[in-house]
This record gives sequence, C-alpha cells and structure tokens, in this order.
Amino acid sequence: MHDFLTWVNHVALAVPSLEVAVARYRDSFAATVSEPLALPEHGVTVAFVAIANTIERLEPLGDNSPIASFVAKNPDGGMHHIYYEVTDILAARDRLKAAGARVLGSGEPKVGAHGKSVLFLHPKDFFGTLIELAEVK
Amino acid sequence: MHDFLTWVNHVALAVPSLEVAVARYRDSFAATVSEPLALPEHGVTVAFVAIANTIERLEPLGDNSPIASFVAKNPDGGMHHIYYEVTDILAARDRLKAAGARVLGSGEPKVGAHGKSVLFLHPKDFFGTLIELAEVK
Repeated sequence: MHDFLTWVNHVALAVPSLEVAVARYRDSFAATVSEPLALPEHGVTVAFVAIANTIERLEPLGDNSPIASFVAKNPDGGMHHIYYEVTDILAARDRLKAAGARVLGSGEPKVGAHGKSVLFLHPKDFFGTLIELAEVK
Repeated sequence: MHDFLTWVNHVALAVPSLEVAVARYRDSFAATVSEPLALPEHGVTVAFVAIANTIERLEPLGDNSPIASFVAKNPDGGMHHIYYEVTDILAARDRLKAAGARVLGSGEPKVGAHGKSVLFLHPKDFFGTLIELAEVK
C-alpha cells in the first residue's frame, strides 16, 4: 500500500483572542491573514494565515466550544491539531481502526470548515497530537 | 513588504520513544519514515515522515536535551514547534525584534538539523507556539 497521508493542509493553533493573534502575525511577519470566519456549528471562529501551505488559528466560540477547555488549560494558546489530507477517508478510517487507533465521536465523517469530510483521531494514540483527517479528491 | 513566511517546512512532534512512534506511523498510516538520525549537538534524535510537506518527530537525546522537559511535562509527547522557511533570516529577525518579538538565545542564527541557519522565537510571543525560522535561499 502506498502512503495515504498526502499533504499537511494546515496546522491549527488555538488562541485566546483571534483579534490579538491576527494583529501579531500581521505586524511581526507582514503576513496576510484572512478575515475571521465564525463557525458556530463547530464552536470556533477561525482565520487563516496565507502561507503557501496554510496555518489556521482558532478561538473558542460559544459555551460548548471544543477548544474552550484547551484554552483554559493553555491560557496563552498553543498548537492544537494537524490536518492531514487523505484521498479516501473511509478507507483511511478502516485501516486506522484495524491498526488499533481510536476515531473520535461516532466514527462517521462530519463536514469540516472547508466543506470536506473529516474525522478526528484520539491524541493518546498519536503521542499527544490531535489529528484531523480530511478527504480531498 | 510582501509576506516573508514562505512555507511551513515541517511540524515537529516530541515523542517519548522514537522507535514506538515510527512504528505507529508506519502501521497506522502506511507512512514512509526515515531512519532515526541522532543530532547530539541539538540533544535530539529525529525521524521524518515522508509526506509531501514533512512531519518531523523528535525524541530527547542526552541529559541536556532541550525537549527533555517538554516530554517530562507531556509524557505522551505532543506538538512541539513549527518550522517556517524565510528567504532572509537576518532581515526576518530584525523585523521581528522591531515588532517586539523575543528571539531565543544569543539572537544569532545557528545551524539546524538541515544545515540551514535557524532561529527560535519565544512561544510566549506567539500564543504558546514555539517557532523555528530557517533561511532557505
């Protein structure tokens, strides 16, 4: 079998304030940063730093945000997850489960911020790193 | 000024055991992983997962490893730093310092794992994320 991780689409950094983080990256790196985009169904507001291979920033949105506890534990923010592209998310999931990795939630792909089918893998199975897989045709 | 962060070269994940982590990525993702490379002068042993844009894994090497305290605090391992490519590391450093960012160590570039000139930025200035800059001509 050839490798099925084809690309790191982005690295997600959780921050307490998107406004402050966006300003810092603009000022320090002269970086082009997207307008903040609220994703209430995911409990986050996101902005992307326009590097050829993108960096995403997240801030909590709403009381049930999945990153609220992360930011509570890491008040400065921190690296949150890596987003890998795969060509076939169901084949990837089945292979991962066969290898003993835990898929979070129901195990069925959901629609992520980019409109792609996504799954998350348990960070305990990957040395403390939360992994998001997204199907990119 | 145009953006000076041109590329995310790799994301570094600290792990307690490189052997275990390499095996996990081989088994779970059918990923091609490089042979471990000891870098005693940096206090780490590294392996690279061959994705188009690479992921690096690090384990502590020696008693004075800079990642030993990280792994002590995060026994499972975790996301450790992001490595950005820049075209002119001295210009990048001077702009960052002018913007108030702290450069770690002496502030002079050192030679990193790839033979490139590298600098590290204080994670407190970048929302909990350690940033490594490397000059790529």
